[in-house]
Amino acid sequence: MNFISELNKRTILVNEYLERYLKKNNNMQSLIYDAMKYSLFAGGKRLRPILLLSSYEVFNKNYKNAMPFACAIEMIHTYSLIHDDLPCMDDDDYRRGKLSNHKKFGEAIAVLAGDALLNKAFETSVDESMKLGNDSSLVLKALSVMANSSGTEGMIGGQVVDMFCQDLIDDDKKLKYMHLHKTGAIIRSSASIGALLGGASEEELNSIEIYAENLGLAFQVKDDILDVIGNIDILGKPIGSDEENHKATYVSLFGLEKSKLLEKELTEKAIESISIFGDRAAFLIDIAEYLLRREY
Amino acid sequence: MNFISELNKRTILVNEYLERYLKKNNNMQSLIYDAMKYSLFAGGKRLRPILLLSSYEVFNKNYKNAMPFACAIEMIHTYSLIHDDLPCMDDDDYRRGKLSNHKKFGEAIAVLAGDALLNKAFETSVDESMKLGNDSSLVLKALSVMANSSGTEGMIGGQVVDMFCQDLIDDDKKLKYMHLHKTGAIIRSSASIGALLGGASEEELNSIEIYAENLGLAFQVKDDILDVIGNIDILGKPIGSDEENHKATYVSLFGLEKSKLLEKELTEKAIESISIFGDRAAFLIDIAEYLLRREY
Repeated sequence: MNFISELNKRTILVNEYLERYLKKNNNMQSLIYDAMKYSLFAGGKRLRPILLLSSYEVFNKNYKNAMPFACAIEMIHTYSLIHDDLPCMDDDDYRRGKLSNHKKFGEAIAVLAGDALLNKAFETSVDESMKLGNDSSLVLKALSVMANSSGTEGMIGGQVVDMFCQDLIDDDKKLKYMHLHKTGAIIRSSASIGALLGGASEEELNSIEIYAENLGLAFQVKDDILDVIGNIDILGKPIGSDEENHKATYVSLFGLEKSKLLEKELTEKAIESISIFGDRAAFLIDIAEYLLRREY
Repeated sequence: MNFISELNKRTILVNEYLERYLKKNNNMQSLIYDAMKYSLFAGGKRLRPILLLSSYEVFNKNYKNAMPFACAIEMIHTYSLIHDDLPCMDDDDYRRGKLSNHKKFGEAIAVLAGDALLNKAFETSVDESMKLGNDSSLVLKALSVMANSSGTEGMIGGQVVDMFCQDLIDDDKKLKYMHLHKTGAIIRSSASIGALLGGASEEELNSIEIYAENLGLAFQVKDDILDVIGNIDILGKPIGSDEENHKATYVSLFGLEKSKLLEKELTEKAIESISIFGDRAAFLIDIAEYLLRREY
């Protein structure tokens, strides 16, 4: 199997399902759907949905059964970006080289489009899972993981700490806390939900979670590294924006070289934790190595 | 049974459960919980949760089983008020006579508190229903009704029409469309979810939905009437604010007297539709008559 072509195949499939799940019922809702789709199809890498599908696949080959949750997670990720970019939050005019949602549609619609995507994540995961006839109690457990990871004890909690408690982040433990919640929670829950729906045992679920936690942290360390050395054409945002905003990063705490080493160690830990699955986890291992190599 | 004392009892019970469901895990989240609770306990009448519990009660006496959804619906209602008040939306400094959320906590926290309440609605309805051991497939159906009523095909859709398509609202059919979605969808789903969880048949559910739809419209007509003749001390917002904002209302379309008549007719239709339940629906009938009498 060629990893990149398989990755592309899954990306295209996720995009097809996102389109399918975002069909409006009538024209009264055109405006809000336009705004939701503008950000949803703004060039996201679909890391989280692909992680979810690929974790599912370790336990059950027919990963399309997990598509409602895979797309729901991407909707949640996208809503968080729209609201993060708002003038009252990070005040970003651009996202992935395109105008941010509120710059394109105005603030009111951007707030509502974010709300609508969070809401649509639950509509989709519930309604489409029921249509597929997925086991109700497993679906409820997956909903619980998803909702908790995006809420006050997960992503939103991390966002609050990021915005209002930056002065608290004076050592790596606190930085880790913030990242484990802000970006890590959704990456971790993507993998957990996949494993859970696929029928993983308690112990297997635990291995997948260790994988995802380390993968998520490695991903964040790489983001901090790329913020310093990245290329604006590729990254779509000004280099050094974290430094400009006086945000604590792994690079500002440890320096560049040690951060690179840390990223490598975290990736190895991630891969190590799923070695028990052998070939069944080959794609998850490829994802980890691919993210280590990425330059954007 | 004295209606008012029973209503107060249920209001207090809903407040107790809301407190219980909003326990934070650690101090890192204090700020966001403070903001969420500020609006959640700002004097709401708890109409929607009480409607949900009382619809449940028509089919099953032990209405505490429906408490997770009753509180979830109130969280969704509250999140929508916080976001509606934002400067980029209705730009309201006051809500129920108190500073609006963004005036008290700043815009960034108000956006996040709204997001967090919408998210918490799903955490609560899923997690607390699982704890109670409620039937998984019924819980999924109730989640579907809740999510759809608050999304693009429900409340959010109505909000978009209200904000951006006011020029379209030149007759009573379009005004009805907007209200059926913006405020009506959540009132209707409150009653539907209660009946669904309580074990209503298809036909029984239908009667409850007709009740709730007419009740919701009557509620809106009364709001429009009170906007013209209400007392600012009681209503907590300047009288005539709709007129000032050039918003289409029932009073501006039909005049005061005809609006009063319409409200009465809608209430009668609501009551008529649940007559098949006899005494079991006594509390729902009392609610409809109570809302007809209300002066704030």
